[in-house]
Amino acid sequence: MANLNVAVVGTGAVGQTMLKVLEERNFPVGRLKVLATSRSAGKKVTFKGEEYRVEETTPESFAGVNVALFAGGEASKIFGRAAVAAGAVVIDNSNNFRMDPEVPLVVPEVNPQDVRWHKGLIANPNCSTIQMVVALKPLYDAAGIKRVVVSTYQAVSGAGQEAIDELRKQSQQVLEGREVSGRVFPWQIAFNCLPHIDIFLENGYSKEEMKMVNETKKIMGDNDIRVTATTVRVPVFNGHSEAINVETREKLTASQARELLSRAPGVVVVDDLDNKAYPLAIQADGRDEVFVGRIREDFSIANGLNLWVVADNLRKGAATNAVQIAELLLQEGLL
Amino acid sequence: MANLNVAVVGTGAVGQTMLKVLEERNFPVGRLKVLATSRSAGKKVTFKGEEYRVEETTPESFAGVNVALFAGGEASKIFGRAAVAAGAVVIDNSNNFRMDPEVPLVVPEVNPQDVRWHKGLIANPNCSTIQMVVALKPLYDAAGIKRVVVSTYQAVSGAGQEAIDELRKQSQQVLEGREVSGRVFPWQIAFNCLPHIDIFLENGYSKEEMKMVNETKKIMGDNDIRVTATTVRVPVFNGHSEAINVETREKLTASQARELLSRAPGVVVVDDLDNKAYPLAIQADGRDEVFVGRIREDFSIANGLNLWVVADNLRKGAATNAVQIAELLLQEGLL
Repeated sequence: MANLNVAVVGTGAVGQTMLKVLEERNFPVGRLKVLATSRSAGKKVTFKGEEYRVEETTPESFAGVNVALFAGGEASKIFGRAAVAAGAVVIDNSNNFRMDPEVPLVVPEVNPQDVRWHKGLIANPNCSTIQMVVALKPLYDAAGIKRVVVSTYQAVSGAGQEAIDELRKQSQQVLEGREVSGRVFPWQIAFNCLPHIDIFLENGYSKEEMKMVNETKKIMGDNDIRVTATTVRVPVFNGHSEAINVETREKLTASQARELLSRAPGVVVVDDLDNKAYPLAIQADGRDEVFVGRIREDFSIANGLNLWVVADNLRKGAATNAVQIAELLLQEGLL
Repeated sequence: MANLNVAVVGTGAVGQTMLKVLEERNFPVGRLKVLATSRSAGKKVTFKGEEYRVEETTPESFAGVNVALFAGGEASKIFGRAAVAAGAVVIDNSNNFRMDPEVPLVVPEVNPQDVRWHKGLIANPNCSTIQMVVALKPLYDAAGIKRVVVSTYQAVSGAGQEAIDELRKQSQQVLEGREVSGRVFPWQIAFNCLPHIDIFLENGYSKEEMKMVNETKKIMGDNDIRVTATTVRVPVFNGHSEAINVETREKLTASQARELLSRAPGVVVVDDLDNKAYPLAIQADGRDEVFVGRIREDFSIANGLNLWVVADNLRKGAATNAVQIAELLLQEGLL
């Protein structure tokens, strides 16, 4: 297999994890470019033991690039089309194109077929959506899904390196009885829960909540799946947890659901209550899989299930999923 | 009004908060006894500026006591009946008698009438149930409730003073990069979420989850209310948060629900997204009310609402509710 020229755009928490995952999974990288804003240009990053100088992104940066992974933010809005015009396939982790009907929104375990109709740009879903749909897909295939009620417990790493630093600093301030200061989160995140991720919209939902509602339908290819979400930031460094209530169309027992999930790609079932085994953010940290546990029937409706779903939001929720899309393109002969 | 002889049984986080709340609310305390196990006997506590020596609880401790507040644990199982036999009215914060059909389970804002049929013992509900039913009651009265899906974000103070100490110690260990040790929680609670509160039952639910299911029906006096719960411990010192999804029998708009809640006893609506105002655990800490915000229609069903409900679990979830029951008994001439 020929090596590919790869660009990673962004050097924050997600961009750095993209480099790590490309290396770990031994993606066939030929020439590597690490691109960022002028603020980060000149910084050094390491990939496979070699140092790379971060370059400032320009429309010309993408000449000869086969695949460009955009970590997030505004970069893909500014340079995404130029990268495509230069011949690169763009895999974009930002929210800029996810709901664009011309852009596939892909989780390889769920809708790999959607990479086939890409027009140069493929979107990576929101972190909290990715881990949910990976867990829902085997249940959907077996029994259909009518409705999902999800509450999230999201780590600060989803808001970037500065948010990680802020949780650390504020925690120390609280423990020392000092006044708490912050600028990333609207309120103190240390030893507190914030029901506020991304901006609020006219309908009373946060943008993060509506991402879970809308992206789920697009990825699953089913506009009849009804989703309602409450997304909450919790004082965890890395690893999102989710309490997911699912109403299936046909009955699934807890043990049927456990069996389906244990055979599902990308899923690890951790569900042994006698041994206090259930998914935990600190154990999912650094892992590429989606962990599912607390699988139990919801006795309040005829066809209900409750699940506890945890994943590393920087990996499966962002970098790993993006690299998996690139691998899928390779397999399909689309790169 | 004549002063009453009061016993507080327990000197942990809840027992100490009971003393504080009795003092703050100026409950007409005549003689005060502070009772505990032999381990705590001899300790000193302060009430209205006076020192009290903690006495070991015996069946004889309750002679002449009018009202005995049991903070939790096994004490009411051992001494509750003796206290009643001695003529005291027992208000019990433990789980020992809550579902006993001979024992009223009371939240004064919700079912004050139930104190009237007490036979000497009145149970205080579980902390996570109390704040939920206070928020649900005005919606129930206006539109009926078919089903509730709740996910909790529960503070460590609910597990007692040792749990508070453990979160503090583990947080420090993580920040200093040291190995984390613990003995109160089954896994590290610092910078992590544990979907495990109380023991697990045969049906796959935790006892805490089933308390929310069963106590809600009893307090609301409606066995047709269907509830499913996922209860989760989060690294917050004090103040439980809850994401509550409600299906009402008749339609309520978000603004109707907001209006009903803003007039409800014991409720404070904090719901101004433009000013990033929503309930927060760190702001509910030390307060007696239940805070409700993020009130929005759930578009996934015809009659759905989502709420974010926060309260001080040691106060409204335990001590304040117990003292309010005593106040109610006084008002009703039942003490």
